[in-house]
Amino acid sequence: MSDNKSKFLAQFPKIVDELKQDLAHYGMPSDAIEWYERNLNHNTPGGKLNRGLSVVDTFSILKGTTATQLPAEEYSKLALLGWCIELLQAYFLVADDMMDRSVTRRGQPCWYRVEGVNEIAINDSFMLEAAIYKLLKNHFRSEPYYIDLVELFHEVTYQTELGQLLDLITAPEDKVDLSKFSSSKHSFIVIFKTAYYSFYLPVALAMYVAGVSDPRDLQNAKDVLIPLGEYFQIQDDYLDCYGTPEQIGKIGTDIQDNKCSWVVNKALELANAQQRKVLDEQYGRKNADSEQACKKIFQELNIQQHYLQYEDSVAKELTLKISQVDESRGFKQAVLTAFFNKIYKRSK
Amino acid sequence: MSDNKSKFLAQFPKIVDELKQDLAHYGMPSDAIEWYERNLNHNTPGGKLNRGLSVVDTFSILKGTTATQLPAEEYSKLALLGWCIELLQAYFLVADDMMDRSVTRRGQPCWYRVEGVNEIAINDSFMLEAAIYKLLKNHFRSEPYYIDLVELFHEVTYQTELGQLLDLITAPEDKVDLSKFSSSKHSFIVIFKTAYYSFYLPVALAMYVAGVSDPRDLQNAKDVLIPLGEYFQIQDDYLDCYGTPEQIGKIGTDIQDNKCSWVVNKALELANAQQRKVLDEQYGRKNADSEQACKKIFQELNIQQHYLQYEDSVAKELTLKISQVDESRGFKQAVLTAFFNKIYKRSK
Repeated sequence: MSDNKSKFLAQFPKIVDELKQDLAHYGMPSDAIEWYERNLNHNTPGGKLNRGLSVVDTFSILKGTTATQLPAEEYSKLALLGWCIELLQAYFLVADDMMDRSVTRRGQPCWYRVEGVNEIAINDSFMLEAAIYKLLKNHFRSEPYYIDLVELFHEVTYQTELGQLLDLITAPEDKVDLSKFSSSKHSFIVIFKTAYYSFYLPVALAMYVAGVSDPRDLQNAKDVLIPLGEYFQIQDDYLDCYGTPEQIGKIGTDIQDNKCSWVVNKALELANAQQRKVLDEQYGRKNADSEQACKKIFQELNIQQHYLQYEDSVAKELTLKISQVDESRGFKQAVLTAFFNKIYKRSK
Repeated sequence: MSDNKSKFLAQFPKIVDELKQDLAHYGMPSDAIEWYERNLNHNTPGGKLNRGLSVVDTFSILKGTTATQLPAEEYSKLALLGWCIELLQAYFLVADDMMDRSVTRRGQPCWYRVEGVNEIAINDSFMLEAAIYKLLKNHFRSEPYYIDLVELFHEVTYQTELGQLLDLITAPEDKVDLSKFSSSKHSFIVIFKTAYYSFYLPVALAMYVAGVSDPRDLQNAKDVLIPLGEYFQIQDDYLDCYGTPEQIGKIGTDIQDNKCSWVVNKALELANAQQRKVLDEQYGRKNADSEQACKKIFQELNIQQHYLQYEDSVAKELTLKISQVDESRGFKQAVLTAFFNKIYKRSK
């Protein structure tokens, strides 16, 4: 594990203690406090923590320093915002796993499948979200940008829920209807469900704390980070179909699961009537033969080639946009370049 | 239906339109916008709307006028806050029904049981909550008390979730363990799960808008409304056991459902070893004989008499407290008296 990640992880127990103390202050009995502690610990750390780490990294770049050189108090403050994103993600994932009837998450059982939890997981997900606003209030109440942080979390939460809703009604696992799919719906879903909270949110949070939050700067950040987040998700979709299990650490199931993936949407754009018929009949079916039939159509349509073209053009577009970002008010192109370099041509 | 209620209900379609327009502004496809509209309409109106109406009523009393005489714009603003409480309640109820596996709510199927909805109801509940902050931002962004409204909703939401958590882990329907029950837990559950959002929240919201929000005034309101809300829930518990089906519009099921009700907690306080043994063996069992055995113990312990004593003492205490409320900063005893009169000795 990187030093940055272990330093960030080391902040989490303090946050759990703070939330437990809040509950004790309300007079909550100890069994309920322990339940909340288990909820927080099971669902919040354990992922890659890229979103949380990005808050600290972005702030460091804006201040011309590094995460390791930040004064301890400043580091804690930024890491706390990073953990608020991880809590937001935990809130979504606990619910997503219930909605998707998933079995495991991050190498352990999904929370709703832990002995004794079941549907209580719904209320537990609510409490993960509520923790965000508790922490913001405890630590940022007196800052002039407090309301900006609160509104940003509200806005991004809403956007993520909109993306999730569209995804759920467009691609239900049990009812295949490719006429509901389209590249524009795909774009909406990935931007709203993933890009806002994973890419824009960490940067915007750090910008507010750094005092670099002119609406033009926030807009410049968004104009790069949203297409970058979309590209990230499109990579994910692409790798699910074309990555090796060694690369992606799992076996792709998007075709069998009727996912509204970039790959199938591109294929639907390009397919002739006969190819379309095959996709209508075979996509989203839970068997290897149907999956292979879809992959054969993808092959005929040169989806891999189209992906490389897309990747090339989005990389050019983003590199240009980044180079044009106005740094005169304190925002830095390097913030965006750091994100871009982490994403571009990744193979896992 | 009272004039007040129909006037309040008439505001809701405007609110739905506003939220739909917000989604259209985000570029949401029309099928998702229609889904959200169905979610809002299925889950938000349809109840007694007492919480929402109380915001308007409290404001009217503070201003020395009546709901019908409020200027239209002012009325809409207060009614919108009332609808925000109803949205908060909708958020909780959609989730509660899933956690309790309920079948119907307000004379129609629970949302998660509507054709095609299922687990999507979890994300739908999230969106009901998110609507609150969208509406607050749209309508109160420029008010000096905007952050107070936002924080109040956060706080009360958290409190309600704490109460719900304690209730869920104290009284699971499928695992009876009366040693987990206690009158102090019961008190915590009803105050947190019900009293804050049903009694304190509507009054506090109206106080902020009326500019009567000195911390001492808010505290005075809370000091009366929280015990009043507890009393309200204890009435509910009492009527579930002792009310006629005509009175309460349903057949009480708290005993069979292993509910952590005031009635059983009072009985546990008073029971001798033999009576306790009966309760341990019969409470929370899904059959009429066990239920009758519990009721017999309640009879032996004179629970009805204890209830009347409790009611008497809480009424005296609250009447005294109300009479001592300081009106010098603009708060009015009449706000609290109005609530008290609606609750005291109600039989439904």
